[in-house]
Amino acid sequence: MSKEKLYVVKIGGNVIDNEAALDAFLDDFSKIKEKKILVHGGGKIATEISKGLGIEAQMIDGRRVTDAETLKIVTMVYGGLINKNIVCKLQSKNTNALGLTGADANMMLAKKRPVKNGIDYGFVGDVEQVESNNLSAFINLGLTPVFAPLTHDGEGNMLNTNADTVASAIAVSLASHFEVNLVYSFELKGVLSDFENKDSVIPEMTPPEYKKLKDEGVISKGMIPKLDNCFEAINGGVSSVLICQATDLLAIVNGVKMGTMLMG
Amino acid sequence: MSKEKLYVVKIGGNVIDNEAALDAFLDDFSKIKEKKILVHGGGKIATEISKGLGIEAQMIDGRRVTDAETLKIVTMVYGGLINKNIVCKLQSKNTNALGLTGADANMMLAKKRPVKNGIDYGFVGDVEQVESNNLSAFINLGLTPVFAPLTHDGEGNMLNTNADTVASAIAVSLASHFEVNLVYSFELKGVLSDFENKDSVIPEMTPPEYKKLKDEGVISKGMIPKLDNCFEAINGGVSSVLICQATDLLAIVNGVKMGTMLMG
Repeated sequence: MSKEKLYVVKIGGNVIDNEAALDAFLDDFSKIKEKKILVHGGGKIATEISKGLGIEAQMIDGRRVTDAETLKIVTMVYGGLINKNIVCKLQSKNTNALGLTGADANMMLAKKRPVKNGIDYGFVGDVEQVESNNLSAFINLGLTPVFAPLTHDGEGNMLNTNADTVASAIAVSLASHFEVNLVYSFELKGVLSDFENKDSVIPEMTPPEYKKLKDEGVISKGMIPKLDNCFEAINGGVSSVLICQATDLLAIVNGVKMGTMLMG
Repeated sequence: MSKEKLYVVKIGGNVIDNEAALDAFLDDFSKIKEKKILVHGGGKIATEISKGLGIEAQMIDGRRVTDAETLKIVTMVYGGLINKNIVCKLQSKNTNALGLTGADANMMLAKKRPVKNGIDYGFVGDVEQVESNNLSAFINLGLTPVFAPLTHDGEGNMLNTNADTVASAIAVSLASHFEVNLVYSFELKGVLSDFENKDSVIPEMTPPEYKKLKDEGVISKGMIPKLDNCFEAINGGVSSVLICQATDLLAIVNGVKMGTMLMG
C-alpha cells in the first residue's frame, strides 16, 4: 500500500516578523489539501522582548547563548506568543491547528548540548527522540500540528532548539508512517549559485553535487548547516526536501517547479 | 456501562507563583491514577512582566482589562511560560502532559465579552463551545491535558478567560464521556463559615443551603462567582465538585474527606 502524502513545512523568522507576510503565508499553507505540519522559527520578537526587560543577549561566535533568563523568554515567545498566534490564525482559516512544543505529549526529547572547547551554549537541546506514534495519531484525528522550536530534557527543563533541525527530525520520524515532503521556506528563491543574482537558483542537488559546490565555495557558509539538515533528512527516509521562497509554497505544492530540490 | 472516572483539577495563581508549592502540587497531581486534566490560572508573573515592559495594568472595578498589549502578555505567559513549565515538569514525573489553549485543536471557542453599561473588558472571552470529542481522544491516547486560561474567537484572536470558568466548561463538556470529578484547589481548606477561622470548613453544600448562606452573608463576595461556577457544573452533569486546599488534593483523591463538597 502506498503511503499517504504529508508536508512538513518550516517557516523562518523573516516571515514571522512581518504580519502581512505571515498572514499571506498562513493563507497559502491552509490551502494545502494534504496532511501537513508547520514548524516555525523564532524571529526578532524574542530579542525585542528581552531588550524591553533589560536582558542582554549573550553571543558566542555569532550564536545566541540560552541562559536561564533567555530560556524563559523563548519559552514565552516561541511557545506562547508566536505559536498561539499562528494556531488561532490557522483556526480562522479552516485549519484545525494544534500547537506543540517538544514537551507536549513528550513530542521531542532532547539532550542539553554538552560544553565543548570551553563553549557552553546554555539551555540548548539536540533532539534525541520524536514521539511519532502520538504525532501520527494527532494527524489522523485531522489535526495540523504547529511546532515551536522548543524541546525538553525529560527532567523538567525546556530547551531551545534550532527550528531547521526540529523540522528535519520530525520529517524523519514520520517517514515510516507517511510519504514525507519536507519544505524549508525562507526569503530567497532557493539555493543560489551566485549570491549577487537572486534568480540564480540551483534547481536540483545530489550529495556529490553538494560536496562539489561546497568545495568550490559556491555554497555560502550560512547555507551549510541548513543543507546538512536536508541531506540528513533524505538519508533518514524523507521522500523529498525542497528549499524555496515562502511566497512560492502553494504553487510548488500544486506542481510548479521552483526552488531547489535535494535528492538522495 | 458505568463511565470511567476523570478528575478535572484547577490550580490557582498562589500555587503557580511559588516554585516549591507548584512542584509539590505537581508531584501529588501526577500520582492520581485515574484519567485527569489540569487547568491552571495566571498568577502574578504576567503582572511582573507587564511592569518590566512598562505596560500599565488597566483595572475597572478591581478587574483587569485585557487590552491588546495585555493580551500579548497573557498569551506569552499563560500559554507559553506557565503552561510549558508545568507540562515539562509533569513529563519528568511520568505524566504525559499535553499543553493546550482554547485555540489548540479548537478546544474552546469563545465570544468576546460585549461592552455593557459602558464597561469594555477588552479581549476577554466567554466560552461558547468545548471540542470534547478531540479532548476525549487525547485522554484516551493516555495524555493528560493541561489547559491555560485562554480561548479563541474563531476569527484569529486569542481571548483571556477566567480559569475557574474554563475548568467548569471543560468538566461539563466531558460529563457525557466520563464520570467527571471537578476539584477547585486553592489556598484555603474549603468554603469557610467564619472567614476569621480557617478551620471552619463547610463540609457539604446543596443549592438551597448555598442560597441560605448567601442571603445570610456567610459566604464572602469573592467566593460567589466560584460557587456559581461549581453549581453550574453540577447542573451540567458533573458528578461531584469539591473546593479544597491544594496540599490536600492527593489525600482527597485517596478517599479522605476534606474540603467542601457541593451537591446537586
